[in-house]
Amino acid sequence: MTDLLDRLRDVVGDDHVLTAADDVAAYVVDWTGVHAGAALAVVRPGSTDEVAAVVAACHEAGAPVVPQGGNTGLVAGGVPDASGSQVVLSLGRMRTVRDVDPVAGTITVDAGVVLADVQAAAERAGRLFPMSLGSEGSCTIGGNLATNAGGTAVLRYGMTRELVLGLEVVLPDGRVWDGLRGLRKDNTGYDLTQLFVGSEGTLGVITGAVLRLFPATTRHATAWVAVPGVAAAVALLGLAQERAGAHLSTFEIANRQALELVLAHLPGASDPLAEPSDWYVLVELAGTATDDGLDDSLEAILGDAVEADLAIDAAVASSPARRSALWALREGISEAQKVEGATLKQDVTLPIARLADWVDEIGPRVAAALPGVRPVTYGHVGDGNLHYNLSAPASSPASTEGRDGDADLRAAAAHLSTAIYDSVAAANGSISAEHGLGRAKAAAAASYKSEVEVDLMRAVKRALDPDGLMNPGALLPPP
Amino acid sequence: MTDLLDRLRDVVGDDHVLTAADDVAAYVVDWTGVHAGAALAVVRPGSTDEVAAVVAACHEAGAPVVPQGGNTGLVAGGVPDASGSQVVLSLGRMRTVRDVDPVAGTITVDAGVVLADVQAAAERAGRLFPMSLGSEGSCTIGGNLATNAGGTAVLRYGMTRELVLGLEVVLPDGRVWDGLRGLRKDNTGYDLTQLFVGSEGTLGVITGAVLRLFPATTRHATAWVAVPGVAAAVALLGLAQERAGAHLSTFEIANRQALELVLAHLPGASDPLAEPSDWYVLVELAGTATDDGLDDSLEAILGDAVEADLAIDAAVASSPARRSALWALREGISEAQKVEGATLKQDVTLPIARLADWVDEIGPRVAAALPGVRPVTYGHVGDGNLHYNLSAPASSPASTEGRDGDADLRAAAAHLSTAIYDSVAAANGSISAEHGLGRAKAAAAASYKSEVEVDLMRAVKRALDPDGLMNPGALLPPP
Repeated sequence: MTDLLDRLRDVVGDDHVLTAADDVAAYVVDWTGVHAGAALAVVRPGSTDEVAAVVAACHEAGAPVVPQGGNTGLVAGGVPDASGSQVVLSLGRMRTVRDVDPVAGTITVDAGVVLADVQAAAERAGRLFPMSLGSEGSCTIGGNLATNAGGTAVLRYGMTRELVLGLEVVLPDGRVWDGLRGLRKDNTGYDLTQLFVGSEGTLGVITGAVLRLFPATTRHATAWVAVPGVAAAVALLGLAQERAGAHLSTFEIANRQALELVLAHLPGASDPLAEPSDWYVLVELAGTATDDGLDDSLEAILGDAVEADLAIDAAVASSPARRSALWALREGISEAQKVEGATLKQDVTLPIARLADWVDEIGPRVAAALPGVRPVTYGHVGDGNLHYNLSAPASSPASTEGRDGDADLRAAAAHLSTAIYDSVAAANGSISAEHGLGRAKAAAAASYKSEVEVDLMRAVKRALDPDGLMNPGALLPPP
Repeated sequence: MTDLLDRLRDVVGDDHVLTAADDVAAYVVDWTGVHAGAALAVVRPGSTDEVAAVVAACHEAGAPVVPQGGNTGLVAGGVPDASGSQVVLSLGRMRTVRDVDPVAGTITVDAGVVLADVQAAAERAGRLFPMSLGSEGSCTIGGNLATNAGGTAVLRYGMTRELVLGLEVVLPDGRVWDGLRGLRKDNTGYDLTQLFVGSEGTLGVITGAVLRLFPATTRHATAWVAVPGVAAAVALLGLAQERAGAHLSTFEIANRQALELVLAHLPGASDPLAEPSDWYVLVELAGTATDDGLDDSLEAILGDAVEADLAIDAAVASSPARRSALWALREGISEAQKVEGATLKQDVTLPIARLADWVDEIGPRVAAALPGVRPVTYGHVGDGNLHYNLSAPASSPASTEGRDGDADLRAAAAHLSTAIYDSVAAANGSISAEHGLGRAKAAAAASYKSEVEVDLMRAVKRALDPDGLMNPGALLPPP
């Protein structure tokens, strides 16, 4: 493989082929800290042509390629396996916003542009790029595209696949497909763009994209609402949708445990309501500069909700600073849970009509599997998507017999995941709503699919990557 | 092939295998009347299992299959070629609405349900299925899905692919893929649903679908607006989007020639404005039952438009009957043009910023190619999509030297199409916005694509249909 490394150095320069342990460390472990591997090298090309040359070299050498964006994934989709034979291809140096066209409503970007920088470029042009995630300060748009990322704006604007018009992709043999078209309507063949979106780097490397922009939403009405339970939250969603229509842009849920972790670990966080509640929703209406009456509309919805026993109390943001403080409670959950200790991440969708029953049923099951486990439940109710994350039992010497809660959780992780997956599958849900499968969930997902469906997926994979060199083991388990 | 026909009769019954010339006549010519072929047989299965058995039998016999819905296509995508060897598989007997779930916002239908019946089923449940086309009374949802149909609601709700959550598909070997999932978020592998949408029956036969429903829009404000030109229409679109936001649901354009054909051929049609104008737009705001102020909002937009010289005059619908009358002017164009005589259909997208210039440039070119040709120009300005349809020169003995205008148009059709395609391609547009490619445009579309892109499409085709029996020659030209 020395030949390959030399060739890669010729392509990108010595400084951008990393092999020393210290240099590669940040690229081989994902955000969870659980999924850790080893790389033959980390290569950091600076252009589409360099990506193409790197992939072509790996193709000729038979070396597997693992594309990586901001490395904020949670399912071992962007980090190498333990073999030490895989080349990590980091897109992090490709950070150019190539074009912004506010009239056409498009922005064209390199894959390595950080999501927050895409948002900022759109804002400077008086437009909105609506995708928003907790990790937006470090995740890249290429990773968002490769995983079909979700986030808090899906309710109104859809998943990543609904926000993209065209792609530029380096294929597994190193050829470049230029599909950077900005047309809303183009029925001239198979939708290759949609095929690559969500393919998790297993069919090629996304190097650029044309994304959709929307009218800027400069007005907001935001509230943190205590609700009696999940069923009430779902009913409140229906009420808000009926009353606010397309203005309803956010409808997020969190349980008390989630809020308590944020209050404990996020500097400056405070409970916006006087009394604790088992469940909360963060609701926001958003409008353009000429949309008056959002505040009145939200107040009316909340008033009716309290009347109908769908809400207990609410804190309405009275200023941009208060709005940010309410959002911080929601956006801080993931980080706070990480600080608290070991976490078993889950990312499930349920048919929305079954969401409340599912939460009621799964609680006792996970408690039976690991006494003391703490469900930190939050997510995107409007999409039926919950992050049903389990924090380790709070450590207490009396109960752990020399082991701490983190170790208990890790020991029970496979068992807990299977219990959750089984119950989600039985309810016709999805075991990965927005995080993708990576290597962590590929086998589990395949086990819940029909043989026909797995065959179709394998046929697509073989057609585009016949040598199986693109992110092997991710999305589909080894044959 | 007698064996195959016997086997097909065993599957669907003698009455549903048509071979007599009179019986098959309606299935072998498409709506244009131009694309006419011959069929080995027309088979009309009544269930997914029957479709599977029919496809399996054809697969074993090596007989090509041409899936057909309402046969309203315009590009030879759903009719057989002239060989007489192809089996037309009509989905017209599969007309069951399987399920409507207004809470989840989903409807599950057989592929053969007529679009208007999908709309009606949604309306009975208090919801909206927004897709709307001129042919909605006879086209089927399966055909809409196979072609990724567009229509007049794309501006607000998107193309067909944005309205579908899951599919049931009979694969080329007769196996059934059950992908009938109603989840908004499901990142568990390649998006097979999106791969089949728009694949024009070349990868399998869509037999069922789960579609998205939206809040019913029961309030409308509608106007027929005379505008000074295409550039003004595009500017007025920007104004309307800024002012009406998500309430803007329709923004259609038509030239004077289009209106005149409707006035001549549609019984009861009348010009809503006192003075003729070269160009018109039909604009509509739509809202739910609680949306007040649509009329005021439209009046304000039109007032500002006149002020800014973006509009000359406007007729605002004062009643549901007047609204229907304005819509009839737009929806009647295609039929009126057919009555008028031979038509060369076009369906192009331009980047919206280049739309006005393109219309200015293409007029002289087509006039040079065929003096007297009449561009009947209309379509979905909001999507950059024009139906730049050419009607034959009005017949006049002095100028035709024994030939009529229809014959002149047919003789010049290939030349005219190439001129239009070339200019669209040069402007980074698409030669098929919403009609698809069929066999009529497959070769042309491939000629404007890169070799890499055609290779990718062929790889997908080979992977799913290795024997090449599904709608051969449609979407991709023969290798």
